[in-house]
Amino acid sequence: MKSTPASGRAVPRFAGIKTFFRLPTMAADGDWEVGLFGVPYDGAVSYRPGARFAPTQIREASSLGRGFSPERAQSWIERIAVADLGDCSINPMSQELTYAAIEKFWDEIYGRKRRGLAVGGDHSTTLASLRAARKAAGEPIGLVHFDAHLDTYPAAWGAEHHHGAFLRHALEEELIDPASTVQFGIRGPLAGADDMDVVKKFGVQTTTVDDVRDRTLDKFAAGVRLDKELPHYISFDIDCLDPAYAPGTGTPVPGGLSTYEAMRILRAVDIPNLMGADIVEVSPPYDHADITALAAVSIINEMLHIFAAQAG
Amino acid sequence: MKSTPASGRAVPRFAGIKTFFRLPTMAADGDWEVGLFGVPYDGAVSYRPGARFAPTQIREASSLGRGFSPERAQSWIERIAVADLGDCSINPMSQELTYAAIEKFWDEIYGRKRRGLAVGGDHSTTLASLRAARKAAGEPIGLVHFDAHLDTYPAAWGAEHHHGAFLRHALEEELIDPASTVQFGIRGPLAGADDMDVVKKFGVQTTTVDDVRDRTLDKFAAGVRLDKELPHYISFDIDCLDPAYAPGTGTPVPGGLSTYEAMRILRAVDIPNLMGADIVEVSPPYDHADITALAAVSIINEMLHIFAAQAG
Amino acid sequence: MKSTPASGRAVPRFAGIKTFFRLPTMAADGDWEVGLFGVPYDGAVSYRPGARFAPTQIREASSLGRGFSPERAQSWIERIAVADLGDCSINPMSQELTYAAIEKFWDEIYGRKRRGLAVGGDHSTTLASLRAARKAAGEPIGLVHFDAHLDTYPAAWGAEHHHGAFLRHALEEELIDPASTVQFGIRGPLAGADDMDVVKKFGVQTTTVDDVRDRTLDKFAAGVRLDKELPHYISFDIDCLDPAYAPGTGTPVPGGLSTYEAMRILRAVDIPNLMGADIVEVSPPYDHADITALAAVSIINEMLHIFAAQAG
Amino acid sequence: MKSTPASGRAVPRFAGIKTFFRLPTMAADGDWEVGLFGVPYDGAVSYRPGARFAPTQIREASSLGRGFSPERAQSWIERIAVADLGDCSINPMSQELTYAAIEKFWDEIYGRKRRGLAVGGDHSTTLASLRAARKAAGEPIGLVHFDAHLDTYPAAWGAEHHHGAFLRHALEEELIDPASTVQFGIRGPLAGADDMDVVKKFGVQTTTVDDVRDRTLDKFAAGVRLDKELPHYISFDIDCLDPAYAPGTGTPVPGGLSTYEAMRILRAVDIPNLMGADIVEVSPPYDHADITALAAVSIINEMLHIFAAQAG
Amino acid sequence: MKSTPASGRAVPRFAGIKTFFRLPTMAADGDWEVGLFGVPYDGAVSYRPGARFAPTQIREASSLGRGFSPERAQSWIERIAVADLGDCSINPMSQELTYAAIEKFWDEIYGRKRRGLAVGGDHSTTLASLRAARKAAGEPIGLVHFDAHLDTYPAAWGAEHHHGAFLRHALEEELIDPASTVQFGIRGPLAGADDMDVVKKFGVQTTTVDDVRDRTLDKFAAGVRLDKELPHYISFDIDCLDPAYAPGTGTPVPGGLSTYEAMRILRAVDIPNLMGADIVEVSPPYDHADITALAAVSIINEMLHIFAAQAG
Amino acid sequence: MKSTPASGRAVPRFAGIKTFFRLPTMAADGDWEVGLFGVPYDGAVSYRPGARFAPTQIREASSLGRGFSPERAQSWIERIAVADLGDCSINPMSQELTYAAIEKFWDEIYGRKRRGLAVGGDHSTTLASLRAARKAAGEPIGLVHFDAHLDTYPAAWGAEHHHGAFLRHALEEELIDPASTVQFGIRGPLAGADDMDVVKKFGVQTTTVDDVRDRTLDKFAAGVRLDKELPHYISFDIDCLDPAYAPGTGTPVPGGLSTYEAMRILRAVDIPNLMGADIVEVSPPYDHADITALAAVSIINEMLHIFAAQAG
Repeated sequence: MKSTPASGRAVPRFAGIKTFFRLPTMAADGDWEVGLFGVPYDGAVSYRPGARFAPTQIREASSLGRGFSPERAQSWIERIAVADLGDCSINPMSQELTYAAIEKFWDEIYGRKRRGLAVGGDHSTTLASLRAARKAAGEPIGLVHFDAHLDTYPAAWGAEHHHGAFLRHALEEELIDPASTVQFGIRGPLAGADDMDVVKKFGVQTTTVDDVRDRTLDKFAAGVRLDKELPHYISFDIDCLDPAYAPGTGTPVPGGLSTYEAMRILRAVDIPNLMGADIVEVSPPYDHADITALAAVSIINEMLHIFAAQAG
Repeated sequence: MKSTPASGRAVPRFAGIKTFFRLPTMAADGDWEVGLFGVPYDGAVSYRPGARFAPTQIREASSLGRGFSPERAQSWIERIAVADLGDCSINPMSQELTYAAIEKFWDEIYGRKRRGLAVGGDHSTTLASLRAARKAAGEPIGLVHFDAHLDTYPAAWGAEHHHGAFLRHALEEELIDPASTVQFGIRGPLAGADDMDVVKKFGVQTTTVDDVRDRTLDKFAAGVRLDKELPHYISFDIDCLDPAYAPGTGTPVPGGLSTYEAMRILRAVDIPNLMGADIVEVSPPYDHADITALAAVSIINEMLHIFAAQAG
Repeated sequence: MKSTPASGRAVPRFAGIKTFFRLPTMAADGDWEVGLFGVPYDGAVSYRPGARFAPTQIREASSLGRGFSPERAQSWIERIAVADLGDCSINPMSQELTYAAIEKFWDEIYGRKRRGLAVGGDHSTTLASLRAARKAAGEPIGLVHFDAHLDTYPAAWGAEHHHGAFLRHALEEELIDPASTVQFGIRGPLAGADDMDVVKKFGVQTTTVDDVRDRTLDKFAAGVRLDKELPHYISFDIDCLDPAYAPGTGTPVPGGLSTYEAMRILRAVDIPNLMGADIVEVSPPYDHADITALAAVSIINEMLHIFAAQAG
Repeated sequence: MKSTPASGRAVPRFAGIKTFFRLPTMAADGDWEVGLFGVPYDGAVSYRPGARFAPTQIREASSLGRGFSPERAQSWIERIAVADLGDCSINPMSQELTYAAIEKFWDEIYGRKRRGLAVGGDHSTTLASLRAARKAAGEPIGLVHFDAHLDTYPAAWGAEHHHGAFLRHALEEELIDPASTVQFGIRGPLAGADDMDVVKKFGVQTTTVDDVRDRTLDKFAAGVRLDKELPHYISFDIDCLDPAYAPGTGTPVPGGLSTYEAMRILRAVDIPNLMGADIVEVSPPYDHADITALAAVSIINEMLHIFAAQAG
Repeated sequence: MKSTPASGRAVPRFAGIKTFFRLPTMAADGDWEVGLFGVPYDGAVSYRPGARFAPTQIREASSLGRGFSPERAQSWIERIAVADLGDCSINPMSQELTYAAIEKFWDEIYGRKRRGLAVGGDHSTTLASLRAARKAAGEPIGLVHFDAHLDTYPAAWGAEHHHGAFLRHALEEELIDPASTVQFGIRGPLAGADDMDVVKKFGVQTTTVDDVRDRTLDKFAAGVRLDKELPHYISFDIDCLDPAYAPGTGTPVPGGLSTYEAMRILRAVDIPNLMGADIVEVSPPYDHADITALAAVSIINEMLHIFAAQAG
Repeated sequence: MKSTPASGRAVPRFAGIKTFFRLPTMAADGDWEVGLFGVPYDGAVSYRPGARFAPTQIREASSLGRGFSPERAQSWIERIAVADLGDCSINPMSQELTYAAIEKFWDEIYGRKRRGLAVGGDHSTTLASLRAARKAAGEPIGLVHFDAHLDTYPAAWGAEHHHGAFLRHALEEELIDPASTVQFGIRGPLAGADDMDVVKKFGVQTTTVDDVRDRTLDKFAAGVRLDKELPHYISFDIDCLDPAYAPGTGTPVPGGLSTYEAMRILRAVDIPNLMGADIVEVSPPYDHADITALAAVSIINEMLHIFAAQAG
């Protein structure tokens, strides 16, 4: 018997203690295959904070979630047991302790041969997630990265680790295989031409909003190359979306993807062997009527379908 | 002499008592051809309430309305007499009395061989409107249905009638002809694969956001088949739009249509013999800067143009 | 060992799945003495809906809660075991089923000789709570009622039970003893002079904002008479507060109490033998920065202190 | 038979076309004694605009209005016929035309020996109202003025008439009798010591928030001197209230009155022979959950009670 | 050495006194080539005011600005010296004085053979800007006009100059060459068929949202004809965008461009000899999470790149 | 000639680059006596972040500021030269560097024998300010501390320095003289009885909201004892105010002071030899219509008057 959300026809969707998708909460050793957990840390942002409240807001907004995708003709609820594992015990005032806690949380998941999805939190936390994934995989993994920003920025104010630098570190630490790394939603303005040096040097596939808009989505997706042998991780920064779709974020950039386009890319691109994923940079104090959180829920839903399609 | 809105060049658009499109208010026996009226009922929603305030908010937002469509080269103000008939006397705590009141309101309109447009309210109210239309037409009518949801859901918490079930009842009660019924904007997630059983069984033309986005809007519209002999009704659930365009609604679903696409579909699809219409599920407490209400006004404007184009 | 909230110094207050005061969730037969539970029903409101979301918002806002009152020199956390019992299984579209479910929820609590605090929901639900309390007490009980409104209104739109009528029914059903019933925060405007007939006829002690403001709070409190032999129930309608302190409510009335005054009254008035309590009419869609929810948390905190002071 | 609002027990308060207090709309020659009308002009503000939308917002918020005051034991609905006269035809881009239109609107009212209440609009419009009142009275009248600001400021940017200068003009034009003029809610900061020269020179009774807070409200009220032989006008600038009670205003000043205090002053001070009144400076774009508009409705309600108490 | 914004890696982007793009403030005779300045005037709007606060909000939102465009492979920071010249000294209560001040501000810029970008303010102010440009150019100039509205409306309420009439005046005063004037984003509804008489009579190239959506953006842009010999001016009314992208504006019109489309048009259309530009009708009181201001910043950024590409 | 704000009668208050009170910006060696500067750091908060944006919001809200206090019959503008010194160069990701930068900023001020007022920022920053003040004074100084919280909390999550611990450190480091230290606005709930151990042990005068409300404000103020020989510092945490007055803060506590009461205390208590001051914990993302920022401006205004009254 699979772990199942409370039915909206029995218990109204506005009722009850809020967990991700109204799923049962479980401990690490519970009976689940994919674990959702919160990472309420926003100590490494450069502009608007607030992402520490994202797990709470997304739990609430996910009350409207359902499991069947008509496009995929699949219900993740029926195929995989998903549970809410609660929040990772981050430390609001220590990057080091927070990253260690995140890595340990993933170690526990991977140690049990399971998969997970982290609900951030700021984007600096992805580095810790990738460290754990690299360790578990035994080799550099592939990365599917949605973002407005390259996230290969140098240190700022003397800080090596901030929310715009995780990818640079992941590349430098050889956590990921650049040949099986793709970026979606990238756009300007940048600080300078050399901002792109890192992705160019490593050979990351960087695609822009222009790339998405200048052809059909199916053709665009067909151009993405990922190594079918590697395990992959998806990191979804909500600011890949235009501020109209995701006002609730820390460093919004106009001219972005629509929620539909991001969902469609997640359906159209064949992402091999998904071992973990995250969604980051949702900042509830700047959201309105939960539209950013609802977009995040739709993205999580697509990611759960990928996990489900690759189940056992 | 046609009924005419107050001119924005004489009376500023922010001034005056708010009626739909600054039109005169009239009684049922007044000199009008198409009657706009409010249905401030939200007793059958499953998540966020608030649609009871929609007629008030839409009246205010419609102050910016104008009558001439450059695309149609037509002014509805010049072609048809439209009036604000006030609000239908719903009962916030009784579905039965409310649906009876709505049906009676339409009977009065149809009894005078006129046409109407109901500003909801939640989507459960459309069933009452279709009952009146079926009665007046003497046969099952065609339906043009914009929605994120199929609205063929079974009973919830023991309630047969709620805002996600009107279409199922309309089909079961044979109020509409499935062969001349089309749905726009439908998208997942669904609760399960069997959610689509009803529309499949009856043969409703269900189109999705993918269908709209994978071809030009004109080609898409050309694929819609409606029976030119039948009278038709349009029911527009504002949640067919993406939450970026319509945050103020009760059960928002990301990945939806843009306001432009919905307006364009209403212009491109040939909808025969329009006898009535509604717009539902606008929830003002969740709106911002009236953008949802303004989208609703744009849709009502397109529907008034269809009435005008088919006038005497 | 008492049930204890998570410490804010170990787990940051913004982290974790949200329960009332970060308390453990427990089933009816768990090890607790006072049970907090949600009643997410707003089907009986006459103006703005939204109170169905109050339990969720108050759970989140109560993350800032702490247990020690310097004025009382008491920690409720140390004196009583409090747990979050989840939400009562209301039915959004049936008053009857909802009231039956609420009554049954209380029966379970009282059957175990424990006490409870319901987080509404609209004020109509209090009637069901009082029915259960009367049944458990074996006699009419005392009532401490905070409200802007008398709540003795007659039927509206043919509905006997709505959020402005619970007190009339409680009096007529002899659930409460009028001689030990007091109202705080009452103010106009009323519909007519006869609005006060019910409280006058039954001899309820009705106090107004003028009464509070025209003397010191201690003197005011000293004037309240409650029967020390009777069990009592507190029903706190958040609209007893001025809209500046509680914008998030359904039928706001300017000229109300401050949060401080309400808290002070709860400290100054000696309320005997508290068996149950509720807080109602918090409507999150109309709140800002959670100030209404935070006021509600402060009131719940005072009520928990009364429970604690009267603990075995 | 008196003009009567729609009953909230028959027609829900959220339903229907919005007029002040759900009263009938009437023309100048209709059967009414006190006329409510809007003055949607904000062309003379010095900081935040938006008051042009006040009549619309206040009409909507007044749906919650009721006519009986328990403190006065009086129902204005039963004593006087009140109607909504619509909006005065202001000109958003011409002070001169606007003031002329306001004066003419009042002339029509006074010419019929009736009384009126203007819902502004910015405070500059009061000058036009006082001109009409002076003309109708045949002598300088008394003025009861609630405000945070003295409104005796000199010209700004070369403009003689702006929202901070009406009182200076009223005094200089001898529209009002300074000996029967009182100001409530005045507070700093001011631009300089000479800001008070005008009120000192003319001998206006200027009271501050300190004056209100340093004694009981009844004692405070007893100190106000108004000439019982003169007709009086009340001009209520909503910014006399603290921004906590009235965030939706153009030039907010912290440290102000509570809504309760303003209502209580209107009840406690004996204002002779009220011939007209206004409420100004409500700016809806800056309001939240209508709390400013609701405060305005409470003030209008108190003013209607004064009209009613003085009714033939 | 070019004028340079403060680096985000040295001074956090949320810190410091807010100037456009964190640029130095300079006087007219300072060392700059393109001057940014505010025009905080909204006295000529027909619906929602508030644009007077746009320069302040856009300064704050531009803290996130950066200078390098990956699409253009160009940094405007490196190519041109840009400065914040402060705000033009408008008069909130006098159109005449305001337009004179704006014209004089531009005269100072053009007199020094420099270029400028005005941050409005309402759209009526563009007329003054075009007068100065015409004067400096010595001939009618070309105009690139983004808007939802034609802005050729006749006088309203007797006022010749309002925010919907600047283009009519510019054509009638022969400030611009209609043959090198193009409009983007135009859409209905209009007041009547004759609304288009002015643009038709003068031969302005008026393109609609349909025109943009019915072909690729590159093909669309290729169809625009501008005279390569003439100097040009860009006037960008933020309401050319859909309200989802720009809720914070005075007269929003659904069905508009996305921010991406507008940015792309500015990149794809070859606009010769840019001498000046403005962005108008951003109304902060109606914005949410600064999304409208951020869209405005993106547009200003594209315009700065055009200036940079054409730099000496 | 004193440094003077731009006049609101010449330059409208909504125009111009925003500095504190529209004052000139000056460098440390400029011609000023009291320096206002921002401290945009919120890295040490335990709940809602956002105070990093406070200097920007308070600069904007202070546009409405004026210099004359009718209660004091004094204009600070005339008595002291005040300037905006810009923001202290904090580091968002390093407490140590931030506190060092703050201390250095004050050293510069005190080294020139001038006085300053820091606009925070979170309350942890006050410790750095007090270190500088102690150093400059050559002895422990007096402290006037407004707060809802005692701020003597122990380390949280292993962090010694957070926004609830500055006072404990200031006492332990002997920066302040407990005998001349007073707290205003303190209230529960606390975590436990031992929360008060620190203030009791050191003998700080801790007053509560009850203390303020149970007597007249003048009597209350008369009870405060401060050492007339010592220099003093004022630290004003905006959360001493009730959330109705200050929703925009990080850890709001209902039942607090009104803005009026805080202003009145600052006027009534004789605070000797003010050498520095700060206002902290304003969190703009949670504010509405700037009411929190406006309250902060009123408090800063009172503090400037104290500086002015003590001016050479």
